[in-house]
Amino acid sequence: MKPLSTKLKGIPRSNIRKLFDLLSSKQDAISLGIGQPDFGAPREVIDGTIAALEAGKGSVYAPTMGVPRLRELVAQKLERENNIVADPNANVLIAPGGSGTISLAFSALFNPGDELLMFSPNFVSYFHVARIFDATVVEAPRRADFGPDVDAIASLITPHTKAILINSPNNPTGYTYSKDELEAVSSLCVDNDLYLISDEVYEKYLYDGRQHVSPASLDGMADRTITINAFSKTFSVTGMRVGFLSANESITALMENFLQFTSAGTNHPCQYGAISGLEYLLENPSFLDEHVATYAARRDTCHARLNEMGLTCPKPGGAFYIMPDVSATGMNGDEFSSKLVDGHGVAVVPGSTFGQYSGNLVRISYALREDLLDEALNRIETFLGH
Amino acid sequence: MKPLSTKLKGIPRSNIRKLFDLLSSKQDAISLGIGQPDFGAPREVIDGTIAALEAGKGSVYAPTMGVPRLRELVAQKLERENNIVADPNANVLIAPGGSGTISLAFSALFNPGDELLMFSPNFVSYFHVARIFDATVVEAPRRADFGPDVDAIASLITPHTKAILINSPNNPTGYTYSKDELEAVSSLCVDNDLYLISDEVYEKYLYDGRQHVSPASLDGMADRTITINAFSKTFSVTGMRVGFLSANESITALMENFLQFTSAGTNHPCQYGAISGLEYLLENPSFLDEHVATYAARRDTCHARLNEMGLTCPKPGGAFYIMPDVSATGMNGDEFSSKLVDGHGVAVVPGSTFGQYSGNLVRISYALREDLLDEALNRIETFLGH
Repeated sequence: MKPLSTKLKGIPRSNIRKLFDLLSSKQDAISLGIGQPDFGAPREVIDGTIAALEAGKGSVYAPTMGVPRLRELVAQKLERENNIVADPNANVLIAPGGSGTISLAFSALFNPGDELLMFSPNFVSYFHVARIFDATVVEAPRRADFGPDVDAIASLITPHTKAILINSPNNPTGYTYSKDELEAVSSLCVDNDLYLISDEVYEKYLYDGRQHVSPASLDGMADRTITINAFSKTFSVTGMRVGFLSANESITALMENFLQFTSAGTNHPCQYGAISGLEYLLENPSFLDEHVATYAARRDTCHARLNEMGLTCPKPGGAFYIMPDVSATGMNGDEFSSKLVDGHGVAVVPGSTFGQYSGNLVRISYALREDLLDEALNRIETFLGH
Repeated sequence: MKPLSTKLKGIPRSNIRKLFDLLSSKQDAISLGIGQPDFGAPREVIDGTIAALEAGKGSVYAPTMGVPRLRELVAQKLERENNIVADPNANVLIAPGGSGTISLAFSALFNPGDELLMFSPNFVSYFHVARIFDATVVEAPRRADFGPDVDAIASLITPHTKAILINSPNNPTGYTYSKDELEAVSSLCVDNDLYLISDEVYEKYLYDGRQHVSPASLDGMADRTITINAFSKTFSVTGMRVGFLSANESITALMENFLQFTSAGTNHPCQYGAISGLEYLLENPSFLDEHVATYAARRDTCHARLNEMGLTCPKPGGAFYIMPDVSATGMNGDEFSSKLVDGHGVAVVPGSTFGQYSGNLVRISYALREDLLDEALNRIETFLGH
């Protein structure tokens, strides 16, 4: 039969899924590969969704751009928490999860030949969604502490560069930008007429008193930034697939078309869950504090123990990932993760998943109960022969 | 700032949405533009979704290809109702709604330069999703009764033709293929090594004793057919965005990658609603009969009254649309629909939305309470000066 899509054939089967296949055949296996919070959703979100189901919202398409009340609350949240001014009818769009917002941003920005600059390692989907939407990813290496090497990225700007992408707090490194660093990247965008895609899904997972800064709030950035986000990590609702974004109106108009024809909008009842969740968040801005403190403690444990084992890694400032270097073991990240899961039933994600500069790293998620996390770290210790 | 996506800029703002904007400013307006059933979802679907929400499924990603139990039930349904043999682990995939399955099919099949053949008029999304995924749509005119002119489509096959798409029962014409017609189109696919995309979302809406036939069940078609479907119309859950498809494993493997990176799977709790719904359907295969009888009666009313008014149209065999020719009024479909909504508060969709051969037609949905449908038809009569 005739050949299928060359673009999709070029996307490798996700390493993460290969790992989970292996893992599912193991008894007592522990996954440090999971990218979702391990506490439940606020009762408000569940109740809001159930009330909408009972009111028949499952039987009616949502407006393509999202339920108006949800867009309004998103605009309030963006103004209050992110210092972003967004007109709910023109600048705000609801999409099927964070991944849906990535697709929308890439589909709206890129034409064949366009280059997307980002620091590497970075979240796996960016690489593949870029391919689907005709952008060429140009990777700039991170600093040793995983921070942005602004000179490195500046030297890679060409006439084909269309946008820079940042994800802070970062998956997979946990690195969190300082305001100075965001200003430096923003200046590059302004000076070179580039768009900025700012993926802020981990904005609530910040440690050591850090404050989240949205680049769309910085000078000259409002119109050239696409701020993408989701309720997935904030409300622990990865299974609901509800994301949101803000961008200038020329961009959201294109996105609305794309969303209309490729998915006919976003799950309707769960948008009402998000409405209840945002109302709750705006009343209780610190509702996640306790969870975040728990995550900070787990981060401390992982950071200390991994470094003691010789798996050196910078201390993450946010998100729930830590990314040690496994070179000292004589293995690269692929060998390390495949032997670890095979011999000891612990899954970590090889760094090669996240770009060309992380072959010797692995990603560990600490979104996991403490006893399991300790047991997994013990097994890694055993694996290393300590 | 730098230019945005040329592809997306080329997609016109949907006529349907322009219409709804106009409509929303009218008191007592009636929309005949809606493509969703007007009865509620079976209680089982709501309850299954709620139980899953209570069990925390909203806080966990679903497997990318869909919840295993749902894929199993889809395979059973396909075998029992559609005579399609599908391995739930290899051939079945759950996606975000029928639109999601269209995106998956197009993304997996097409490379730049590939041609997609279909009869026109046809569902609006096919045209635009084709553009997004680099396929060139080649339209073949329908027969006067909206049936497939197989010679017309055969004469349009070139070395660039990659696939034929059919949607039966059809949106927007209501035409429903006979088994002979499906066999004729299938032969074209086999003889010319073409894929067939078969969109069967309206399979349950069949009138006058018609039986649905899935082309994937015909000789030589199993491997070359992508059968796309959704729970949206069958269970009246357009707001839940849960669709399903079956295809050969080379195709589903590519789709899984696409789905993973562009949407991270499909709404998890609502997949459990679909599980409960399918269990109910498999036990009660005739649960929709009463609704379908209601729709058949509405179809009869619309067909008789429109023809009496001089808006001639063939009698639809399925779905819930009817597509009259408005030439006798001296207006084309665009003028007709814009004057009708403006002067009489009734929205119908201009035929130009659905391709190049339907400029003199309009689409009317009769998925609407009888009293509103009657009132809308009365207003159309007034509009025509009868």
